[in-house]
Amino acid sequence: MKVQDKYYRTVWMEDGVVKLINQPLLPDKFEIYSSKDYQQTAQAIKTMIVRGAGAIGAAAGYALAQAFFADEDRKKAAEVIKNTRPTAQNLFYAVERVLKANDKEEALKIAIQIADEDAEACKKIGEFGESLIEHGAKILTHCNAGWLAFVDWGTALSPIYRAIRKGKEVFVYVNETRPRLQGARLTAWELSQEKVPHAIIADNAAGYYMKKQEINFVITGADRIALNGDTANKIGTYTKSVLAKENNIPFYIAAPTSTIDFHCPSGEHIPIEERDEKEVLEVRGVRLSPQESRAKNPAFDVTPHEYIKGIITEKGIFTPDQIKDLATD
Amino acid sequence: MKVQDKYYRTVWMEDGVVKLINQPLLPDKFEIYSSKDYQQTAQAIKTMIVRGAGAIGAAAGYALAQAFFADEDRKKAAEVIKNTRPTAQNLFYAVERVLKANDKEEALKIAIQIADEDAEACKKIGEFGESLIEHGAKILTHCNAGWLAFVDWGTALSPIYRAIRKGKEVFVYVNETRPRLQGARLTAWELSQEKVPHAIIADNAAGYYMKKQEINFVITGADRIALNGDTANKIGTYTKSVLAKENNIPFYIAAPTSTIDFHCPSGEHIPIEERDEKEVLEVRGVRLSPQESRAKNPAFDVTPHEYIKGIITEKGIFTPDQIKDLATD
Repeated sequence: MKVQDKYYRTVWMEDGVVKLINQPLLPDKFEIYSSKDYQQTAQAIKTMIVRGAGAIGAAAGYALAQAFFADEDRKKAAEVIKNTRPTAQNLFYAVERVLKANDKEEALKIAIQIADEDAEACKKIGEFGESLIEHGAKILTHCNAGWLAFVDWGTALSPIYRAIRKGKEVFVYVNETRPRLQGARLTAWELSQEKVPHAIIADNAAGYYMKKQEINFVITGADRIALNGDTANKIGTYTKSVLAKENNIPFYIAAPTSTIDFHCPSGEHIPIEERDEKEVLEVRGVRLSPQESRAKNPAFDVTPHEYIKGIITEKGIFTPDQIKDLATD
Repeated sequence: MKVQDKYYRTVWMEDGVVKLINQPLLPDKFEIYSSKDYQQTAQAIKTMIVRGAGAIGAAAGYALAQAFFADEDRKKAAEVIKNTRPTAQNLFYAVERVLKANDKEEALKIAIQIADEDAEACKKIGEFGESLIEHGAKILTHCNAGWLAFVDWGTALSPIYRAIRKGKEVFVYVNETRPRLQGARLTAWELSQEKVPHAIIADNAAGYYMKKQEINFVITGADRIALNGDTANKIGTYTKSVLAKENNIPFYIAAPTSTIDFHCPSGEHIPIEERDEKEVLEVRGVRLSPQESRAKNPAFDVTPHEYIKGIITEKGIFTPDQIKDLATD
């Protein structure tokens, strides 16, 4: 996608150096982080200089290719890379694929393939999803499921980018997405770069605009999709799905089929990570609340399949009850 | 209520000086603001050193009593005080009442009466509401409808304080309440002082805990109640009412009957204030979002009467359809 009118991916490789958009610096500063070797790239994944399912996978693939080029112990390198973010499915998948390479040229080729496939899947999601977006649509999105989380295009934002390119008018309501503010920081930044008209709103305000029918389409990404279509995503997604149902507004999930967990029968089997209470008690290092107060900070919630109108993947748009059929593909 | 184990009201008068808990300094610092004359007290209302319906009303009454004692032009003083917060109903009511006094002694007596009546109404709300709170209740509240917003006890928090005094165990989930964070700053501070077990949560997390039935009671204050029971309150209240309905959790409003607008037939007639976008784009002066991004910031929303199980007032607990009958009281 474009940044200051120039084309970028979130991650790529140049003369043996892995290049990453330095995400913690956004939206204040746009800077490319250069990583010379696999250890440094692994560290960049761990410290979230690169974050988001697809982007982590691609960075992990390139990291292992760096190990091949430096004649490092490949298996040891694979372990180091896999240990950076213990729950990231795409990371394991990318490392295992590159590890099968016979030489450095093949390792690089596979790493590039992984990145290209991610970009291609997201592009397809955009093409399928674009058909759902009407001219004049007023769209709500939550968290960041844009291209910064993948290699290019993103998932929830990809149909919006395609709709804009087709000349459709859209307006995007961006939930700021407390506690980590990925909406206010990253989604708003992406939309600004692509000149998509938008407004940031407090998470509390989404219901107000839905009730007024000033929002007529809701789309979010997914962290994990169960076989029955129940979908885990950023905390607050469930709330938006209930509000959408209450106000008869279609609610869509956009995610590549790699997000489907074919071992998971339903949402109640998805463990929910509880993160550091400081994310709630502070904003960017500034304390908001009394020293005596504690906080609770679940990072995800599960949206039951009955609230989801459709799941947009690179293979097409499916109803939640069709998800299980994709397992036999 | 108690602060550091000593009893305080939010506003009182001592030797001609109006004393106010300096609310913008909370929760970092507890300090009493002293106002020597009515001009200074009016300024304190305007700059929100004192805020909240009941507390503003009491401060306005005391301010006009100060004008009586200083032999100022009473009508001019009344105008200055009324012009501080143009939409605050309690402010007009208090000023008009004190203005009818014949001398300074009577003015002071009426001002004290207004403050006492507010404290008494809130205490009664606590007594009626306490009956609804079961031992072991897990309660969600939104924004700050505690004693800091009134003279003493508060509205939504008053039943909780009474339940605690009766030895009931309760746990309170405090919505941080973006954008102005009245939950994280003020409600959490009040509950800390009264040693009420609580946790602050991101506004996004309330639905998660309701779905898990880890919240079994929801109570908020009100800014205006229409004749059909529709209730305007802090942005995000509507969302919580929809989530409560979806998860079969009782949703209550607590407010004195002075909050009922007998000229307002239903919620759609209540105007919604749109506030400065900076409240969303920044937190305590720290910018969160890209410079190019705009925000929308509605301050209130309307909860339709059908989502409200009951409205707790100083006259008893009413269903929304009983509200219109109070008009003939």
